[in-house]
Amino acid sequence: MTTLGIIAGGGDLPRAVAESVRKDGRDVFVVSLTGDANDWTAQFPREQVSLGEMGKALRALSAHDCRDVIFAGRVDRPRFADLRLDTKGALVAPRIAAAAFKGDDALLRAVVDVFEKDGHRVLNIAEAAPSLVVREGIVGRNRPSAEALQDIKKGFQVVARMGELDIGQATVVCDGLVLAVEAAEGTDAMLERVATLPERLRGTPNKRRGALVKAPKPIQDRKTDLPVIGIRTIANVSAAGLSGIALEADGALIVDRDDVVRAADTAGLFIAGVLSAKA
Amino acid sequence: MTTLGIIAGGGDLPRAVAESVRKDGRDVFVVSLTGDANDWTAQFPREQVSLGEMGKALRALSAHDCRDVIFAGRVDRPRFADLRLDTKGALVAPRIAAAAFKGDDALLRAVVDVFEKDGHRVLNIAEAAPSLVVREGIVGRNRPSAEALQDIKKGFQVVARMGELDIGQATVVCDGLVLAVEAAEGTDAMLERVATLPERLRGTPNKRRGALVKAPKPIQDRKTDLPVIGIRTIANVSAAGLSGIALEADGALIVDRDDVVRAADTAGLFIAGVLSAKA
Repeated sequence: MTTLGIIAGGGDLPRAVAESVRKDGRDVFVVSLTGDANDWTAQFPREQVSLGEMGKALRALSAHDCRDVIFAGRVDRPRFADLRLDTKGALVAPRIAAAAFKGDDALLRAVVDVFEKDGHRVLNIAEAAPSLVVREGIVGRNRPSAEALQDIKKGFQVVARMGELDIGQATVVCDGLVLAVEAAEGTDAMLERVATLPERLRGTPNKRRGALVKAPKPIQDRKTDLPVIGIRTIANVSAAGLSGIALEADGALIVDRDDVVRAADTAGLFIAGVLSAKA
Repeated sequence: MTTLGIIAGGGDLPRAVAESVRKDGRDVFVVSLTGDANDWTAQFPREQVSLGEMGKALRALSAHDCRDVIFAGRVDRPRFADLRLDTKGALVAPRIAAAAFKGDDALLRAVVDVFEKDGHRVLNIAEAAPSLVVREGIVGRNRPSAEALQDIKKGFQVVARMGELDIGQATVVCDGLVLAVEAAEGTDAMLERVATLPERLRGTPNKRRGALVKAPKPIQDRKTDLPVIGIRTIANVSAAGLSGIALEADGALIVDRDDVVRAADTAGLFIAGVLSAKA
């Protein structure tokens, strides 16, 4: 199997993907977008590029024989005016800038398109690192209550609507009430906000109620931006007094699964992989 | 014209409604739910009741000959277990508790239903205090840019979707990107969150971008919960670096309009009444 090229943004996901792929016996080459030479990427062959250096990224991938590439991790939208563009970057920048105006999904699709036109096959993370993917069923030892199942059902409806408009991938529902919807702030900030709502609206660590629901946007092609939970998600869900987390089965990722399951079990939180069509 | 009964929750809206109605020459009687005997309600004939005292509220409205009543102001969801219920309150509590589980709109409709069954006509605020209602057109002296008009259009799409699921009435869109969606936290908290996002995603007071959009939920009957802006909204929109506010024409309210317009004009913010179907 050829080397897998990982175009790596911020957060824990790219590291988890790289480790998972290497563990499965495939070589990894990392194109790092974070500019941090001391991070986890040092344990892999790598090239550091800035966001405008599209040519440098493509040349590095070719030099390492990466037919297959994946995108993983968070990339904050730059001001286009601040980008240092190389020749290839300058060539594709107008198209990407135009796509950016239509939303995150259009932006990511435009970037994927550049790599595919250059002869790469852009895989989704679920294909490249299947052990990170949540499958249908309960993860860990706690199960959702009947009330939580109702909240999960509503949460999937909300996320589906949000996704149609390219807004966010997560919501919090408690006793039928939508407490929060994720947009640009991200899941952690959303959960921190839920923790500040009056206790009668949500649960408490002593009497947990409500659920975090995460599912991919229906319009995304799943090559780029699958919903993820990790150890910090568990801490924030716990602090918000929620009873657990429902993820779209086959459409969401758990980073550092052993730690995540241990923390959820200890806190009394459920983690459920749910096929939203059945929720 | 008979006395108008105002069932008054928290915030500035009930005061503004009461003053507007009195200015238009109609007597007002206030049923105050806030428990604050020193607030603005002291300038009107009033009765203080707690949320479970449905019988006391209905008797007071009858004693003051209030055929017409309106609901105005914020009422936080109580824990039903904490309510002191009078006889009528106990009678209707199970039905209201059941409705509460379906969402805010169902809850409010159930409460409206109790008053209507008792012979009252429940008006919406737009009928009772038409001078508070935003009409189509620009309020104040600033106009939205072409970019802001695009953001407004997307914002109305987002709020319509949110409303179908009884989530919230407000969103912030900037350069086509949905920065925030309001759920249980309310508009002020949502705007404070936008102010903490990276500046490249939003505007700044020096270079304003993006818009706050507020519109009523399509499923609500507009008797209870119209979107409102006031002086605090202007301060928060300004601090978030947005360029202005679009409100559903004939479906949203401005409290303390003179102060609001002066503050918006000074800060360089537009306020636009927009028929969402035309946005």
